[in-house]
Amino acid sequence: MPEKTLKQLADHTGGRIVGDAGVIIHSASTLAGAGTGQITFLNNKRYLPLVKTTKASAIIVGKEFESSAPLLIAEDPYYAFQQIVVLLHGQRKHKDVGISKLASIAETAKLGDNCNVGDFVTISDNAAIGSNCRFYPGVFIGPDAEIGDDCILYANVVIYDKTIIGNRVIIHSNASVGQDGYGFATHDGVHHKIPQIGRAVLEDDVEIGSGCAIERGTLDDTVIGRGCKLGDMVGIGHGTTLGPHCLLVPQVGIAGSAVVGHHCMLGGQVGIVGHIKIGNMVKIAAQAGVINDVPDGATILGSPAIDADLGRRAYGSIQYLPELRKRIRKLEKRLDDYDKSGP
Amino acid sequence: MPEKTLKQLADHTGGRIVGDAGVIIHSASTLAGAGTGQITFLNNKRYLPLVKTTKASAIIVGKEFESSAPLLIAEDPYYAFQQIVVLLHGQRKHKDVGISKLASIAETAKLGDNCNVGDFVTISDNAAIGSNCRFYPGVFIGPDAEIGDDCILYANVVIYDKTIIGNRVIIHSNASVGQDGYGFATHDGVHHKIPQIGRAVLEDDVEIGSGCAIERGTLDDTVIGRGCKLGDMVGIGHGTTLGPHCLLVPQVGIAGSAVVGHHCMLGGQVGIVGHIKIGNMVKIAAQAGVINDVPDGATILGSPAIDADLGRRAYGSIQYLPELRKRIRKLEKRLDDYDKSGP
Amino acid sequence: MPEKTLKQLADHTGGRIVGDAGVIIHSASTLAGAGTGQITFLNNKRYLPLVKTTKASAIIVGKEFESSAPLLIAEDPYYAFQQIVVLLHGQRKHKDVGISKLASIAETAKLGDNCNVGDFVTISDNAAIGSNCRFYPGVFIGPDAEIGDDCILYANVVIYDKTIIGNRVIIHSNASVGQDGYGFATHDGVHHKIPQIGRAVLEDDVEIGSGCAIERGTLDDTVIGRGCKLGDMVGIGHGTTLGPHCLLVPQVGIAGSAVVGHHCMLGGQVGIVGHIKIGNMVKIAAQAGVINDVPDGATILGSPAIDADLGRRAYGSIQYLPELRKRIRKLEKRLDDYDKSGP
Repeated sequence: MPEKTLKQLADHTGGRIVGDAGVIIHSASTLAGAGTGQITFLNNKRYLPLVKTTKASAIIVGKEFESSAPLLIAEDPYYAFQQIVVLLHGQRKHKDVGISKLASIAETAKLGDNCNVGDFVTISDNAAIGSNCRFYPGVFIGPDAEIGDDCILYANVVIYDKTIIGNRVIIHSNASVGQDGYGFATHDGVHHKIPQIGRAVLEDDVEIGSGCAIERGTLDDTVIGRGCKLGDMVGIGHGTTLGPHCLLVPQVGIAGSAVVGHHCMLGGQVGIVGHIKIGNMVKIAAQAGVINDVPDGATILGSPAIDADLGRRAYGSIQYLPELRKRIRKLEKRLDDYDKSGP
Repeated sequence: MPEKTLKQLADHTGGRIVGDAGVIIHSASTLAGAGTGQITFLNNKRYLPLVKTTKASAIIVGKEFESSAPLLIAEDPYYAFQQIVVLLHGQRKHKDVGISKLASIAETAKLGDNCNVGDFVTISDNAAIGSNCRFYPGVFIGPDAEIGDDCILYANVVIYDKTIIGNRVIIHSNASVGQDGYGFATHDGVHHKIPQIGRAVLEDDVEIGSGCAIERGTLDDTVIGRGCKLGDMVGIGHGTTLGPHCLLVPQVGIAGSAVVGHHCMLGGQVGIVGHIKIGNMVKIAAQAGVINDVPDGATILGSPAIDADLGRRAYGSIQYLPELRKRIRKLEKRLDDYDKSGP
Repeated sequence: MPEKTLKQLADHTGGRIVGDAGVIIHSASTLAGAGTGQITFLNNKRYLPLVKTTKASAIIVGKEFESSAPLLIAEDPYYAFQQIVVLLHGQRKHKDVGISKLASIAETAKLGDNCNVGDFVTISDNAAIGSNCRFYPGVFIGPDAEIGDDCILYANVVIYDKTIIGNRVIIHSNASVGQDGYGFATHDGVHHKIPQIGRAVLEDDVEIGSGCAIERGTLDDTVIGRGCKLGDMVGIGHGTTLGPHCLLVPQVGIAGSAVVGHHCMLGGQVGIVGHIKIGNMVKIAAQAGVINDVPDGATILGSPAIDADLGRRAYGSIQYLPELRKRIRKLEKRLDDYDKSGP
């Protein structure tokens, strides 16, 4: 890892330093775990007490912060931290393995320049892969799939036939993209499989977590908009579209034919029913159950999901229900007594 | 794709046509996406306005519907649509690959006629596979597993030892069947693993989604009844049995030793505790948490789950709790004032 | 399977027999399913009626139980049952396959004595594997990963680079350990990937279910404490630590930087937000949503989660909300009438 002065890091991120600009930084760590030569960051007031006790050589903080320790004051501390971690540590380095002799690549498949294809990878007929892609062992690419440039597919990822994947897409281990949507027509008590002839489309700069399952469309495509980031074990139903730059943390599930706008943030285990429309910039708290359309910019929570300001008080009031029932009974008793005897 | 007249499609499905029976149909699409030569369907009143604007050459609808556009009127429009999509597009076509030289098949394993075994598939000792099965790359079949005829296992599916799978079963990528049930005996604070000696049994015509995890039984078998369809990332606990023709959409979880009847429908992210009995034809809404036995034919929702009619009003009333608390306080105040001064 | 007398089984577990100590037992089964020569157990009062009708040759029960049938009375019946199932059936037997010629093992990787490495396994550069490990087909071990002795990794498990795994760890099929944490810094509406330079650490005697996803840390490690048992499809966020001997049943999700104490029990589909502290010996009921710190020894339920005693009554009271609203309206009407006309 390269050694940098705090000054160099501040110049790299456009931040201001309070304290010793010459202190040497070689790596990044947490407030609690950092030691000499390490930089850390403060992005959550919960950890403010650790600023006084940290052994770090520097802390990245927001403008509202003043201290006698050397500080790197940034417009956007978390983004500055991201840039510095990339500078000091870089993203994952991958070994260049070329095209493994233990991979199985169809003659009709096309690979761009400089791809790395690991052991036991299967690339099926007519698949078209761009340049600089990296497939870890056990990846399966179905027939007629199209994958852009600079993609990374980790071990045992499965891409079904005809799936379309853009550039710079990252897919983590054991995820599935383009499997059949959940589509059955029930007749006389038997469920008949509807061919799923739509595709799954991942636009540029999407990242998909481990164990995700992105269904192909029944007729229309399932689309994950550019820059969306999906955590582990997220499920997306057939024909659902996510606008650009949404954040879906682990275990979110969205049923089919839903339309989600851009820059939405969905907390863990959120569920969204099918055939509804979620606006742009919508925030949905963890475990919420969304059953109706949601307007642009809304913040919602709870199952069923409602406006967050009301919802915090409403769901937080469930704990008072036993007491409220008692108080209502008592009011009724008092009024009954009035009825009998007057006040 | 074959070209058909609307008349031919109506004959194929036993439907009646309103409008031009000679219009040529070559493929299927959505109301919004269809163009000339395409057929679509209406199964949800939400999309009724699109009937007026669709560019489709024909629409499949129920009997209650009349229009000047050519219509294919069916008893069961969604089933008619399924039949037509199958006729026009067919189910997925698979390339015949025979038995890949890159597969690893134990000498003691038996394969029926006409199986296709992809690259990097492992079939273990004494596994018995029927005819016309198709295993995509990376599939693992454990020792002593039995698989019927006409099954499709997509890439990287894992079947544990002694698992029993019927005919015409489809299992999607990265699903696991027959892994150890979650069984530990805790003694002095340490959890001791209980051998899971039951099996996982999938009956005929079951379909299992990507990333599912179907535990084997501790003692008795885990059974997925014939014709059940499980969405992605569904988890079934050890010793649980599903009756025939249940629909479990993605991310459902059922704990161990539960008994579920036939033709039940479980919404997304539903959770069912272990050791309870769900009747036949039960419908459970998304995210419900079921902790008690459920009688035949019930429709339930919420966590904890209650009758749906009551539940819709009850869970929908949580939003009024802050206001109700205020009104109760006000009532108490008014009565206190009466106590002090009379009405 | 070995045949044992009930006396031998009682001696093996330190239990007392009521009835015929000489009865021969050859295998284990359920109360409902057992027949002659089989032993079963009673651990849940729900099944008490089956004790009268079981065809089993013996039943393991707690001390509170007396019967005229032969009984094996144990201090801890479930633990005695576990010991007996192990004695009669043993844990899974694995075929010794040695190092498969179809595996791909880097020259710089180290393997201890007596390892079994299945077909299509990849072991990457500088990975260090202990003795007596068993990797099923399709397993991927990333560069610089360290794995202790006596570990079992089932088919298609993926271990990312630098992951640390202790001794006697079991990981079921299609699970992922050490994939990138969900870490992005959002700047001008674009999400920038933060290198995840921490590791995932599984301590000794951990068991991980099928399809689990254990993120590596951003800076600090993600740690699963010794003896923890995770069910299928459990997700653990980056930098979260579980103390020793926790039980997490299927589909639990814990966000990043949470701290969970020892011997906690988390029910199915529980969600825990990031950056909070769960004490020791905490019990959390299925589907609970935990958003605040939880003290040692607490039992909680609901979403949001509250004390279980209160919570059972509170969440159980939601069903009365429509009726309570009516009663409040009626009280208001009665008081309004008083206001108008006096009692």
